[in-house]
Amino acid sequence: MNGAETSLKLAVIAGDGIGPEVTDEALKVLEVAVDRLGPDGVKVEPTRYDLGAERYFATGEVLPDSVLAEIREHDAILLGAVGGKPGDPRLPAGILERGLLLKLRFELDHYVNLRPSRIFPGVVSPLRDPGEVDFVVVREGTEGPYTGNGGSIRVGTPHEVATEVSLNTAYGVERVVRDAFARASRRPRKKLTLVHKTNVLVHAGAVWSRLVAEVAPEFPDVTVDYLHVDAATIFLTTDPARFDVIVTDNLFGDILTDLAAAITGGIGLAASGNINPDRTAPSMFEPVHGSAPDIAGQGIADPTAAILSVSLLLDHLGHAEAASAVEAAVLADRADLAASGAGVQRSTSAVGDAIAARVAG
Amino acid sequence: MNGAETSLKLAVIAGDGIGPEVTDEALKVLEVAVDRLGPDGVKVEPTRYDLGAERYFATGEVLPDSVLAEIREHDAILLGAVGGKPGDPRLPAGILERGLLLKLRFELDHYVNLRPSRIFPGVVSPLRDPGEVDFVVVREGTEGPYTGNGGSIRVGTPHEVATEVSLNTAYGVERVVRDAFARASRRPRKKLTLVHKTNVLVHAGAVWSRLVAEVAPEFPDVTVDYLHVDAATIFLTTDPARFDVIVTDNLFGDILTDLAAAITGGIGLAASGNINPDRTAPSMFEPVHGSAPDIAGQGIADPTAAILSVSLLLDHLGHAEAASAVEAAVLADRADLAASGAGVQRSTSAVGDAIAARVAG
Ligand SMILES: CC(C)[C@H](C(=O)O)[C@@H](O)C(=O)O
Ligand SMILES: CC(C)[C@H](C(=O)O)[C@@H](O)C(=O)O
Repeated sequence: MNGAETSLKLAVIAGDGIGPEVTDEALKVLEVAVDRLGPDGVKVEPTRYDLGAERYFATGEVLPDSVLAEIREHDAILLGAVGGKPGDPRLPAGILERGLLLKLRFELDHYVNLRPSRIFPGVVSPLRDPGEVDFVVVREGTEGPYTGNGGSIRVGTPHEVATEVSLNTAYGVERVVRDAFARASRRPRKKLTLVHKTNVLVHAGAVWSRLVAEVAPEFPDVTVDYLHVDAATIFLTTDPARFDVIVTDNLFGDILTDLAAAITGGIGLAASGNINPDRTAPSMFEPVHGSAPDIAGQGIADPTAAILSVSLLLDHLGHAEAASAVEAAVLADRADLAASGAGVQRSTSAVGDAIAARVAG
Repeated sequence: MNGAETSLKLAVIAGDGIGPEVTDEALKVLEVAVDRLGPDGVKVEPTRYDLGAERYFATGEVLPDSVLAEIREHDAILLGAVGGKPGDPRLPAGILERGLLLKLRFELDHYVNLRPSRIFPGVVSPLRDPGEVDFVVVREGTEGPYTGNGGSIRVGTPHEVATEVSLNTAYGVERVVRDAFARASRRPRKKLTLVHKTNVLVHAGAVWSRLVAEVAPEFPDVTVDYLHVDAATIFLTTDPARFDVIVTDNLFGDILTDLAAAITGGIGLAASGNINPDRTAPSMFEPVHGSAPDIAGQGIADPTAAILSVSLLLDHLGHAEAASAVEAAVLADRADLAASGAGVQRSTSAVGDAIAARVAG
């Protein structure tokens, strides 16, 4: 029956807590979205990888090399959320973050960590007057203070000294800066804001400033400005509409995107792509939110962020129309919800069904 | 006429831009506040130090050793703001910040960078529903990513590598953590929140977590919790009233206090103390805002943050009653302003006069 359908080999890491719940809905919407591509379209072939806190507790394994090698053979990765209960003594700080999530980002060279922010229709921002918010943060994903470069001496004593080394290379900064410029030049407002702390972190700051200045002439249509990270948090609360594309380092990007999610009405709507633009390895798409163990298993988690991550996934794989259809379905779903009045509580699968139905059109 | 008046030797660094304007008003209020102490009180003896961008342009000097030695002989420092126009090519990134502001903080061992946040009467927060906001950030001031420890190789080439090293010592963390606990135990809600990124910055994070856990038993009345810095930005916008005392590292503190200033209605009201609790050197009090060259010289800058810094100064020097009088005067001034309707534009000196008159009682 099918024509020249190609397969989309998808590694699915549903993870812990609400991860599996939201991932199911994301997959539901993905299936429907690729159906739109018609008989010559795409067939999703998901392979599930059981990784996260539960596997770690059961086996002591975080991300075995053999699993990483298998994941590498896929076209893309869909991740739900990983992480146990906060303060669980069985889970030392950083084990899953550094051993799984960051390991995937680093090993698969996800140097563009893409996080769009907009206020969806009907969503109430905690800001009194947010204005028209529609920006995207291009967060560097493979360098900065996230490299795990650091150490401690005299651990546990009054003489302990601990370091964390932020590593910044011209190579690493230039490629993400160029990606951010390219994204800015494709957007209507064509504006790029570098966020850093060049007045204190002068060495790293100099690399970022220099490369933004050096790449800028390749994109003469893009307007460039600069904000210190502290000032950027002020503008994100007083005038978030001023932003179009923000390019920033790994740690500042982590902080700013949670703030961005908060001011646009919640982390339940924030999607992200960990992108390898050179396609030397699969890119990974995940909601910004965590595993939320407190509400897991109740079928009440909002799967919208996971579903929007599917839109980023489709876009990355070149299916722009299907990507837009998913995004449009989410927008329409939200508008409907807003029109039907506040306080409507929908189950996780009800949200997935509603959006899938719209995508099916 | 005077009794046993003691002198308050005050080093005044008015600085650049609006710095001198707001400092004049702060000094005006300080004079009136110490008059309240009566004949056996305090006589302010200000010595002005001409430091900042203008001096640097004129002489190439940032903070000569001899000047630092003189400043050290004072009881306290009042600083306005330092810094030139953004992007001024005569002022390389970090020159004034690292050579003057941070040099003072480090040389004078200002390990407690104290930044209170509250919403003043009549002040409109950008948040729709901020609740009762009244918290204080205890930001570490002498370590972390601010030590200037880092460097670059192959500068200006495609092979440049730049590092920034965050230095964290048990000694440095313990003393600021203990100070934060002590402050928390003196406040009605007695709550301390550690903010860090222990899941990524595992070495530094371990020192912070350990010392909070180790110091906690000395303050059994204080409740302790922990937030990752990214999550902290979410709570600062969705539920800032949850915070009482936040203790955090130098860089996270920089970011969170600007955000805190934004959500409480603006950096024009945010005061700070760079405190050496051991009194081995003078502490320094300054508004959180910068030199704002765009509005300098017009007499329109709001001196309230500088005036509130005087309240912190008086408190630090043991004049709790005078400190409260200044704070109460600011509160009353704001309440009055609110009652008289929005849109009232007062000159810098009018605000100083109004507050000084209230302090005089
Ligand atoms: C879980 C954590 C390691 C991660 C990060 O810091 O990048 C998360 O906060 C995120 O933003 O994806
Ligand atoms: C000017 C700059 C060095 C400074 C800092 O980063 O500490 C400022 O932002 C502050 O918060 O006092």
